[in-house]
Amino acid sequence: MSGAFGDFSRRLRPEVDAALERLLPAAQEDPRVLHQAMRYSVFAGGKRVRPALLVLAGETYGVPRELLLPGAAALEMVHTFSLVHDDLPALDDDALRRGRPTVHRQYDEATAVLVGDALLSLGLQTLMTEPATVAPESRLRAAALVAEAVGTRGMIGGQMADLEAENDWPAAPAAALEAIHRRKTGALLTAALRVGGAYGALDGGSDSLLTALGRCLGLMFQIGDDVLDVEGDSLTLGKTAGKDESARKLTYPSLHGLEASRRMLREARTEALDLVARLPASHDLFGSLVDYLCQRDR
Amino acid sequence: MSGAFGDFSRRLRPEVDAALERLLPAAQEDPRVLHQAMRYSVFAGGKRVRPALLVLAGETYGVPRELLLPGAAALEMVHTFSLVHDDLPALDDDALRRGRPTVHRQYDEATAVLVGDALLSLGLQTLMTEPATVAPESRLRAAALVAEAVGTRGMIGGQMADLEAENDWPAAPAAALEAIHRRKTGALLTAALRVGGAYGALDGGSDSLLTALGRCLGLMFQIGDDVLDVEGDSLTLGKTAGKDESARKLTYPSLHGLEASRRMLREARTEALDLVARLPASHDLFGSLVDYLCQRDR
Repeated sequence: MSGAFGDFSRRLRPEVDAALERLLPAAQEDPRVLHQAMRYSVFAGGKRVRPALLVLAGETYGVPRELLLPGAAALEMVHTFSLVHDDLPALDDDALRRGRPTVHRQYDEATAVLVGDALLSLGLQTLMTEPATVAPESRLRAAALVAEAVGTRGMIGGQMADLEAENDWPAAPAAALEAIHRRKTGALLTAALRVGGAYGALDGGSDSLLTALGRCLGLMFQIGDDVLDVEGDSLTLGKTAGKDESARKLTYPSLHGLEASRRMLREARTEALDLVARLPASHDLFGSLVDYLCQRDR
Repeated sequence: MSGAFGDFSRRLRPEVDAALERLLPAAQEDPRVLHQAMRYSVFAGGKRVRPALLVLAGETYGVPRELLLPGAAALEMVHTFSLVHDDLPALDDDALRRGRPTVHRQYDEATAVLVGDALLSLGLQTLMTEPATVAPESRLRAAALVAEAVGTRGMIGGQMADLEAENDWPAAPAAALEAIHRRKTGALLTAALRVGGAYGALDGGSDSLLTALGRCLGLMFQIGDDVLDVEGDSLTLGKTAGKDESARKLTYPSLHGLEASRRMLREARTEALDLVARLPASHDLFGSLVDYLCQRDR
């Protein structure tokens, strides 16, 4: 990760990891295998993009860093829940994640199901209970935003629609692809920004702005991922490159072609920068974040 | 279900189902299969014991019925989440539930994973957002109590320990059995009582009383289930009777014998009735509930 957002994200990472370390059950506590597997999945080398978005949005609206870290850690738990379940044999059937065996390969399927369940539950619980010094209304709003982003109108619905599209090519593929990714990827990225704002007693206009920016970033994130999947190789990605294409999956390059996908990414970049220009001036890292999403060197 | 609690529970059921009908996404909304499968699992003929406990506890402490129904429906969603995931081939591998094919048999495994995820998420979200007229602090407390009951110190931890005990007979089986069921069954039953109380701004002493009663009911529920499993047959249970014993599963009868299990059930009944006697006198259904758990005619 290069650029100002990359630096910010790299410096933030140990703080998020310290919060995760504190909030996750100890590996020595029974049932040990479950707690060890939760830690295996969470400390697997993720870039902590969602925590960074939450902290960036919160700081933009004046919320102190220490009040944002538990929520940032909680979002990473919720994100990891979705990865662990999506990797299961019955879903995407992935053997590798970030260069290491997926949870069901390293442990077993039952453990992977329960690890996902436990991370979803603990993530939402953390948003409800931490930090205790934040007003209950703000914690409730933060947790409800994330639960909504997880549900069938968010990530879970997007994943289901994605699986259905694999079996039956949708009648309106471009609209279906957009709808899938708005929910599968965009919903939690949007929630990350809005939760950061929720700790700062945000007005409605600012919340709408963060919502629009989140949708735009989600789109860039997904197109970027799809383009990277075609261009990349196993070594830098840590997963089987070209897998999406070989499975005739509905992706931006498979539907629109590589060049058109790159152009859509540039258009989304312009829209995102317009939205960023309307944020309070206190945090100029958002522009760098947009460029990071366009040219990820993961 | 016979007795006063049976009557109460039967009359309550259509009210809980109406709340579930309102709160679950419409079957016509995309992704349809997911929403249909959620309804298939929730409207499968469950006895709605947890909703009844929540309403009973809430009304005991003076909370109006209409404020309790959304939380009661949410608890049933969370309970159903655990059934759907526990039935998966990688976990208990059950083909039938209440006489009908389990979700992964009726649909497929991917759908069953996502149905469970969606019911957990929606259940917690409902507790956070409904009813809007209840103070945010009470909703936050209700949702946090249930999230805690779900987590690795609750249902998920109990299920993991149960699976581990199937592979390796524990060194201290009696303690392990008790710990498994305190979490796997007792935690959510206890949460049901405490959530009902939480809507009524309960004092600490009453909350402790409901917690103790919940633990006791959970124990009775599990011993009763194990005893029923030995005594019952496929027809009345709607699942393969004697399955637990044939799989050499850690159960009360397999560990202590049938007679000793029945005695433990009677002892738990005495303890439960002592606790019930300390509740406000407004609701005499708790005694009938205790008898229902001792002699379920499901």
